[in-house]
Amino acid sequence: MVLVESVANSERYRPTRADKFSFGLWTVGNSGRDPFGEATRARVDPNDSVRHLAELGAFGISMHDDDLVPYDATPAERDQIVGRLRRTLDETGMVVSMATTNLFNHPVFKDGAFTSNDRGVRRYAIAKTMRAIDIGAELGAPVYVFWGGREGVEAMAAKRPADALDRYREAIDFLCGYVLDRKYAMRLAIEPKPNEPRGDAFLPTVGHALAFIGSLEHPEMVGLNPETAHETMSGLSFYHAVAQTLWHGKLFHIDLNGQKMGRYDQDLRFGSEGIKDTFFLVKLLEESGYQGPRHFDAHAYRVEDAAGVWDFAAGCMRTYLLLREKARQFADDPEIAAALMAASVAELAEPTVGAYSADAAAALRSAPGDPNVLAVRGYHNERLDQLVMELLMGAR
Amino acid sequence: MVLVESVANSERYRPTRADKFSFGLWTVGNSGRDPFGEATRARVDPNDSVRHLAELGAFGISMHDDDLVPYDATPAERDQIVGRLRRTLDETGMVVSMATTNLFNHPVFKDGAFTSNDRGVRRYAIAKTMRAIDIGAELGAPVYVFWGGREGVEAMAAKRPADALDRYREAIDFLCGYVLDRKYAMRLAIEPKPNEPRGDAFLPTVGHALAFIGSLEHPEMVGLNPETAHETMSGLSFYHAVAQTLWHGKLFHIDLNGQKMGRYDQDLRFGSEGIKDTFFLVKLLEESGYQGPRHFDAHAYRVEDAAGVWDFAAGCMRTYLLLREKARQFADDPEIAAALMAASVAELAEPTVGAYSADAAAALRSAPGDPNVLAVRGYHNERLDQLVMELLMGAR
Amino acid sequence: MVLVESVANSERYRPTRADKFSFGLWTVGNSGRDPFGEATRARVDPNDSVRHLAELGAFGISMHDDDLVPYDATPAERDQIVGRLRRTLDETGMVVSMATTNLFNHPVFKDGAFTSNDRGVRRYAIAKTMRAIDIGAELGAPVYVFWGGREGVEAMAAKRPADALDRYREAIDFLCGYVLDRKYAMRLAIEPKPNEPRGDAFLPTVGHALAFIGSLEHPEMVGLNPETAHETMSGLSFYHAVAQTLWHGKLFHIDLNGQKMGRYDQDLRFGSEGIKDTFFLVKLLEESGYQGPRHFDAHAYRVEDAAGVWDFAAGCMRTYLLLREKARQFADDPEIAAALMAASVAELAEPTVGAYSADAAAALRSAPGDPNVLAVRGYHNERLDQLVMELLMGAR
Amino acid sequence: MVLVESVANSERYRPTRADKFSFGLWTVGNSGRDPFGEATRARVDPNDSVRHLAELGAFGISMHDDDLVPYDATPAERDQIVGRLRRTLDETGMVVSMATTNLFNHPVFKDGAFTSNDRGVRRYAIAKTMRAIDIGAELGAPVYVFWGGREGVEAMAAKRPADALDRYREAIDFLCGYVLDRKYAMRLAIEPKPNEPRGDAFLPTVGHALAFIGSLEHPEMVGLNPETAHETMSGLSFYHAVAQTLWHGKLFHIDLNGQKMGRYDQDLRFGSEGIKDTFFLVKLLEESGYQGPRHFDAHAYRVEDAAGVWDFAAGCMRTYLLLREKARQFADDPEIAAALMAASVAELAEPTVGAYSADAAAALRSAPGDPNVLAVRGYHNERLDQLVMELLMGAR
Repeated sequence: MVLVESVANSERYRPTRADKFSFGLWTVGNSGRDPFGEATRARVDPNDSVRHLAELGAFGISMHDDDLVPYDATPAERDQIVGRLRRTLDETGMVVSMATTNLFNHPVFKDGAFTSNDRGVRRYAIAKTMRAIDIGAELGAPVYVFWGGREGVEAMAAKRPADALDRYREAIDFLCGYVLDRKYAMRLAIEPKPNEPRGDAFLPTVGHALAFIGSLEHPEMVGLNPETAHETMSGLSFYHAVAQTLWHGKLFHIDLNGQKMGRYDQDLRFGSEGIKDTFFLVKLLEESGYQGPRHFDAHAYRVEDAAGVWDFAAGCMRTYLLLREKARQFADDPEIAAALMAASVAELAEPTVGAYSADAAAALRSAPGDPNVLAVRGYHNERLDQLVMELLMGAR
Repeated sequence: MVLVESVANSERYRPTRADKFSFGLWTVGNSGRDPFGEATRARVDPNDSVRHLAELGAFGISMHDDDLVPYDATPAERDQIVGRLRRTLDETGMVVSMATTNLFNHPVFKDGAFTSNDRGVRRYAIAKTMRAIDIGAELGAPVYVFWGGREGVEAMAAKRPADALDRYREAIDFLCGYVLDRKYAMRLAIEPKPNEPRGDAFLPTVGHALAFIGSLEHPEMVGLNPETAHETMSGLSFYHAVAQTLWHGKLFHIDLNGQKMGRYDQDLRFGSEGIKDTFFLVKLLEESGYQGPRHFDAHAYRVEDAAGVWDFAAGCMRTYLLLREKARQFADDPEIAAALMAASVAELAEPTVGAYSADAAAALRSAPGDPNVLAVRGYHNERLDQLVMELLMGAR
Repeated sequence: MVLVESVANSERYRPTRADKFSFGLWTVGNSGRDPFGEATRARVDPNDSVRHLAELGAFGISMHDDDLVPYDATPAERDQIVGRLRRTLDETGMVVSMATTNLFNHPVFKDGAFTSNDRGVRRYAIAKTMRAIDIGAELGAPVYVFWGGREGVEAMAAKRPADALDRYREAIDFLCGYVLDRKYAMRLAIEPKPNEPRGDAFLPTVGHALAFIGSLEHPEMVGLNPETAHETMSGLSFYHAVAQTLWHGKLFHIDLNGQKMGRYDQDLRFGSEGIKDTFFLVKLLEESGYQGPRHFDAHAYRVEDAAGVWDFAAGCMRTYLLLREKARQFADDPEIAAALMAASVAELAEPTVGAYSADAAAALRSAPGDPNVLAVRGYHNERLDQLVMELLMGAR
Repeated sequence: MVLVESVANSERYRPTRADKFSFGLWTVGNSGRDPFGEATRARVDPNDSVRHLAELGAFGISMHDDDLVPYDATPAERDQIVGRLRRTLDETGMVVSMATTNLFNHPVFKDGAFTSNDRGVRRYAIAKTMRAIDIGAELGAPVYVFWGGREGVEAMAAKRPADALDRYREAIDFLCGYVLDRKYAMRLAIEPKPNEPRGDAFLPTVGHALAFIGSLEHPEMVGLNPETAHETMSGLSFYHAVAQTLWHGKLFHIDLNGQKMGRYDQDLRFGSEGIKDTFFLVKLLEESGYQGPRHFDAHAYRVEDAAGVWDFAAGCMRTYLLLREKARQFADDPEIAAALMAASVAELAEPTVGAYSADAAAALRSAPGDPNVLAVRGYHNERLDQLVMELLMGAR
């Protein structure tokens, strides 16, 4: 292997609009505040964020209503703020790829938003979401995300889970009705998370949210926005989570970042932890036909100053491109192809028995196979995985 | 609080058939073998287990095919073994409350059963399951469980998850067809687990399995068999998992035991860890109308001799009854009722907005509520949770 | 069991000064701010906290310098604030049982305090600690705690761990020198934590900190302040952690709260999670001769209003007293005594071989025992643990 | 970057004796048995393992007594077996780099070995260890490892932790006495693990074991054998664990493998998980002056046949060499050097205040620095970490 770091190399990993990278306004705007410390960076004007991200090669942004419009803004101020962002987007050629509601920061949501025990709060949450959906529609967001940050509980006795799920469904059904009524070209996406800030959240994983969607009035217009950190916190494979989401046709959006298992929500720079799982994720996204944004929901370390934020943002995109290239190398590598063959990977795509019929059952019973013979072969996964690691380490 | 341990007391927690306690043959038959050590207890004859469990007050047993019939049994031997168990059940009044297939112990399944990359293995797995379903039907098991112990992967590259889900679905669809064809009065139940013995399992949680069921050919005949240890390994609330399962109408069976979060699969005596989550689980089962068995999938510590196994089994049932009594106390306690009121728990059962209509939306927009006013109240959950803890500790 | 909740009962769990309960000013003063939300409760005046805690039966408080004296206070203001607290303490009969420095909240500490890469920051951290030690001494705090909240790293490359440990040691050695020089009657206690707010903290567990103390210039004046939540985050037994700390003679102070494993730092009400581990902890503290405060480092759920904070505080103490009573019951229960005997618990206190001698070695070799014979017995731990659970549930 | 996979490349990562790679006999000899399944591979003759490992480029092996000599071997058989291995080692030029005792597999150890409640078992464990130390000495093992696999508890009440630590210390002190008496050129190394197979183990982490060593009679002859999987199970950084071990001068041996956090003990191929932590580990070992073996305690996936085992073994070594090369690249990379400078990494090696003196304290108090000024700078860790990731991915 000859390492030639060159202009060509740095060009190769330079993002373009076609790569569809987007960032939450709250990500590059993150001030570094955490449970144990005050902000270490100044607030960034959303319009500046848009311009800076455009220069770096992103194609879009996402936002909570509150990232843009303060609680106490008058309707005129709200229109002025939204109009200004609209112009900045137009000037830079950037899009709003996703919008969402902040239903977690204000103390009113301390007991939940759609699942607060207080009906008044629940009504306020839905009203706030309607207003925010309007902003999203006005700015052209094709996907509207629901992260139920406060939809959970610390004291188990404080909420009957079935009631909470009923209210959650009622809210989503109502808001689907609203979007349809307004004829917004918008799909909804639920973002699961197991815990933090609540002790135990409802719809804790991709799986729970997928099942929940099946119970909705308009299941076809609701999908998922899975997030690396959220699934990984529970020690689950994010790659598998996204794969099952795609299998159900429900990958409407994605939140990419980095996270160690069994930890507080870290929202690290994309790819900075769990490189192998991240590689298979990128490979999956690229090969699945997923057309949505590659959206980063992460933030710079608290030790960074303003400049470090842009290093962070550039790093997210660059790592994605590096891994995308490796996915292509994977597909072209003859030794890897041979290892996949030795592991019988393609054979898993072949039907086992087909649809049930009494004949098929009888055939199977009469010739089930001999387990002791079938058990002999090896699957050569060590070799395959080692080739993956070497590909990841640039040794292929 | 006056503590009077008396005959009356020990009678009060004595299980009866009506309590519907059942145990896997493999649980009381567990030999104490673990990854680092050999068996510490002799194998128990299944008929002896049935008799012993009957004496202790259980109403049923469950079993893998291999718990009963050895791999190399002739058809005549198989019939003799099954017949003998049938007689023991009849003599003791015990039932087979659930049956399942061992698709994990034999080396043939090292790469998976329904999702092995080797089609021959997949066919063998389905054939073995058909035979095992026959035994289950013959012994009257109303529920047939699928735990995909080997359906997973260590080397991510070794299985495309979508292929694995396709094959999983194909197998379940085929076996539903078989059960229907044979006119067995049997429902199927999937048992999720996040990992161990595989690095990452397909259908890792209750949520993922619920979503998967929605994609089946006969979703109505397939539900779940959630297990305390399996959900808890990922740090998720088992109480919430079972509640969502019930909410979807999919609690077909349950595996009760004890587990610490973030650990290897411990299968501890029911109630011996996570007493608060366990209490709410028992309360939920008792109040939900669930009619199925209270089934223990646990085993005695490896340090126990044969006698210790029965201490273990008795302890599982006794703790369940203790917690059931506490659930009744909870319902009758006026101070707890007041605390539930202060936390507005019942208010979560009230609809927030009802079905969508343009009028309802307009009404909500015109009077959304004032967040600063709505934020003022407290929810008094500390007091509620403390009352729960004191109830659990017998101080109420 | 007859449950008689009576005046006598509620008296029985009423804390007194002799119980030595103390609370951090920051605990009852916690405003409910978290990573995803703003404060839900107003700031509490420290003097009000002292008075309220005194009424509830606490004997003392602890504090960070910043809990009391703002950054921008003049020396005169500082003296006035400290003097006012001194008078409130005298009026109420409360003590300052521990003091500590806030080395994590201000942005200056974003890269660490004693282990910041910036030498200026490190010097500032030591200077701030000296000033804070003076306040602690003036208020009579016998223990001074060091929690290295920011002593860690996200980017592994950013700190050589050996350098960080060198600087940590240098700072503690210097501050020991300062305490000795000032002739303060004060011992130092290190509080370990595995992560959060930093990705990986130095001195992550009780064990690492104990080992570190052995390398100090004045190891005899430095001990530990272990915290339930911090050890439990890593899935380790806090009971075992405190037991090893006591075994080394290093339990100088303790931070009691509640925590689920593998989660963000929850600081829940004492005893509200992990009741079995908590019971053994209380039993250990009571039986070990530990004379220090039973100090709570926890906070009320964010859903609580001001009143809920005092429910929380009362609950911490009440649960401790309940568990203390159960520890006494444990010691007096003949059935438990029999079970301990059956498990050979006392036999573990007997020397195995004594000090080495060639004769002892020869004797052992000549009669090593027969493993197959020694392996036969059971240890009856299921029965013992079930009795513990029933004691905890008030069924004994 | 131009990728040229060539003969030169594959030579570059070919291990030699000088690299000091060693493997446990039980690692390449692992049969694939796990808690849910039977062996998938035949037992390997230790002499064959030695020969095969020699061919692959390893320099040594390690072993448990039971890996070599069966329980029921006569003294003559024992001598014959040991002699045969001695000859195979001589023929191949391989060494025994470490030896240890199996104190976990036999049922006799079900309640512990040095900390079993049964004094007879404790005596047997020490006697067995003495015999095994003799074998280790005879085969020239310079390090003798103690993994207390069964030294722990499920039922908290079953062991007083202080008693367990007393007995653990007594055993190690006795065995140190034995080694000294026999004048063996052998150091002892303790291997910590948090749990599995026991619910909670004594000496759960590197930190706890380091502290324990400080309490021994011969602390200078006892160090650590840290293992990747064991520390990582608790979510702790193995890199930091080894760094603190080195800082205390206690890295006597090391067990390298791969592991996901918060999981059962996986013992995966070295480097196959947590590549960033693994890279810093290799860098640390290479730069620390550590002269001991690079010892792998891992095993091939259960899906492998005999051939896959050698793929696995070769992969462990190859990944180490790849990462070692990257460590050298790291040291030589000017952009990384600049990033380290921007992060002030070297400044952490500078003393902060030096030893305590009244003058130094006074100087510090008079000029503590201004926190608001000191807080301004960024530390540029995002850039540094991104460079590390790109180095790891072969993009530098």
